[in-house]
Amino acid sequence: MILHIATFQWKDDVTEADVAELTDALSAMAAEIPEIRSYAAGSNLHLRPAGADYGVAAIVDDAAGLDAYLDHPKHKAVYEKFLGRMMAERAAAQLPISQGSFA
Amino acid sequence: MILHIATFQWKDDVTEADVAELTDALSAMAAEIPEIRSYAAGSNLHLRPAGADYGVAAIVDDAAGLDAYLDHPKHKAVYEKFLGRMMAERAAAQLPISQGSFA
Repeated sequence: MILHIATFQWKDDVTEADVAELTDALSAMAAEIPEIRSYAAGSNLHLRPAGADYGVAAIVDDAAGLDAYLDHPKHKAVYEKFLGRMMAERAAAQLPISQGSFA
Repeated sequence: MILHIATFQWKDDVTEADVAELTDALSAMAAEIPEIRSYAAGSNLHLRPAGADYGVAAIVDDAAGLDAYLDHPKHKAVYEKFLGRMMAERAAAQLPISQGSFA
């Protein structure tokens, strides 16, 4: 399986309401894309100094599952409505895991 | 529980041998810190365009567990021997999860 992680730094004009709407939209999206086996998204809890504004983690079966998720029309819709205009910086990576889940 | 994710961009002079040594050191470290419930670290598989060079994901019980991990002498030792001199950029976030694991 593959763990996909991404962090985001928001532009200065992003509001808490924007972020709440984004989280709702991402959660709804994840529930409708079967290739996403497990999903977590939300504002950084900022338990340590510095750090990004927001994080996403998704578990998929393989590279095809990752493409199905990231190229899905519902993901593109969230990008177009929220992420594209909100993000100043993004960093992402995929790691191999033998198995995994989170809720 | 808390999911801690971090991505790293390496400096230009970082070699594959450096990264392999780092991954070995992180894996050994994670096995010796009981507050780390689950851990994954490795080079970005680069299944999508752009993206960071390296990623880490760790699951801990709570904020105290995260501090125990990140402030642990074995973590500091890996930072001093590898991460500090290797990283050009780092982005990290903590997300709340109700439960989770990966191997």
